[in-house]
Amino acid sequence: MIVEREFLRRIAKAAAAETLPRFRAHGDVSNKLSGGFDPVTEADRMAERAIRALIEEQFPDDAILGEEFGIKEGTSGREWVIDPIDGTRAFISGIPLWGTLVGLKVDGRAVAGMMAQPFTGELYVSDGSAGFYEGPGGERRLATRKTSALAQATVCTTTPSLFLDGKRALYDAVEAASQLARYGTDCYAYAMLASGNVDLVIESGLQAYDIVALIPVVEAAGGVITDWQGGRAEQGGDVIAAATPELHAEALALLRS
Amino acid sequence: MIVEREFLRRIAKAAAAETLPRFRAHGDVSNKLSGGFDPVTEADRMAERAIRALIEEQFPDDAILGEEFGIKEGTSGREWVIDPIDGTRAFISGIPLWGTLVGLKVDGRAVAGMMAQPFTGELYVSDGSAGFYEGPGGERRLATRKTSALAQATVCTTTPSLFLDGKRALYDAVEAASQLARYGTDCYAYAMLASGNVDLVIESGLQAYDIVALIPVVEAAGGVITDWQGGRAEQGGDVIAAATPELHAEALALLRS
Repeated sequence: MIVEREFLRRIAKAAAAETLPRFRAHGDVSNKLSGGFDPVTEADRMAERAIRALIEEQFPDDAILGEEFGIKEGTSGREWVIDPIDGTRAFISGIPLWGTLVGLKVDGRAVAGMMAQPFTGELYVSDGSAGFYEGPGGERRLATRKTSALAQATVCTTTPSLFLDGKRALYDAVEAASQLARYGTDCYAYAMLASGNVDLVIESGLQAYDIVALIPVVEAAGGVITDWQGGRAEQGGDVIAAATPELHAEALALLRS
Repeated sequence: MIVEREFLRRIAKAAAAETLPRFRAHGDVSNKLSGGFDPVTEADRMAERAIRALIEEQFPDDAILGEEFGIKEGTSGREWVIDPIDGTRAFISGIPLWGTLVGLKVDGRAVAGMMAQPFTGELYVSDGSAGFYEGPGGERRLATRKTSALAQATVCTTTPSLFLDGKRALYDAVEAASQLARYGTDCYAYAMLASGNVDLVIESGLQAYDIVALIPVVEAAGGVITDWQGGRAEQGGDVIAAATPELHAEALALLRS
């Protein structure tokens, strides 16, 4: 174990206190809370502040990279990577598939992380040695399902329109060979992969803060997550996550072709 | 008021008792529960049975149309229309955007209805005179937001691939003229419209049981819902729902062109 699950729970709770009151906040509620910013921008900033404060208090020597407030240098070789609201388009549409992402890199490698969805009360977390779901229905170990062939796979992507240039045709080839495709999923797709509900996630144009938190969650569940060249995915860009090594290899071959 | 909200709450609760234990039920759980059927088929059937039993007990002279068990004739001029799980693809992917739909038609017109999402604990309901949200955050009156121009609108559809033949180009024209599009939403999109989170829902190839429950929810919130010719939508087929009459007119003009 690299980080206490309880610490990640505290982060999730502190972020939820800022995001949840601004989710679906219309009219006077949003005006009162935001003072000029739109609710999602305000939720993003306030949540990241709350997360940073907890990390700085607990781990003052660690570096922090956040979507909203940039880089704080550290001296420990550890770096926290924060996306306070991944899936802002879902957030502003009232759809509870957004999440708060916090990951920990040690010497450049993502080793622990969490995705928290406060409206549904779900937490998908890796403490660096195992992956856990906490939420409605109780607590469970995360485990991908054992789908090894693309023809039996459910594939998720946020929207096909995010695949630019020749990448759209590569993605379309994977989708055409799969059993079922679901769109509009953002970070929630990786949580569904890690909990054995879907088999494949393919995305393009990601930032580091979109993916660092999710890598350990997928890996702790037995999944494989890389870039489209088969290398580590910590930098973001084009990413593929799969339930099994066999499925990863089959889909990756199409994306590289 | 045409039907007590409390009766619709009871229906939602009875359906949830059948659907929720089978949602995300992997491995031994699904085998134990299903006895040969896959979990979603079993959840669909068991939920519809539970819903029918409540309606038959309370309103023995009413007709019932359900996705799974067809038509029961009635003598009252009233007909209940049931889709126990709308969004089965979301259901089997673990994504909580599916819902239980129950609507009431009187003399052919949809007048009351509900969409219940038991994992999130949400109920979107019209009792025939007003629309209500019940769920996390409490109870609220449903009201669409006042978006009157397509250029400011968020549009939802389940997936563009459901628009066949020339309809895809018509839908694409609406999406291109809108501000934001969200996919993968099924019945949840109409709930987001009725609660002021999105502005437009466009779908094709619907069955009557996909839409009858949602018409009163949208209308009670101040929205407009019709087929692509501007007529009543009770038969399903091609459907458009909009937050305001102005937005409905602008999008409908594109769909008819």
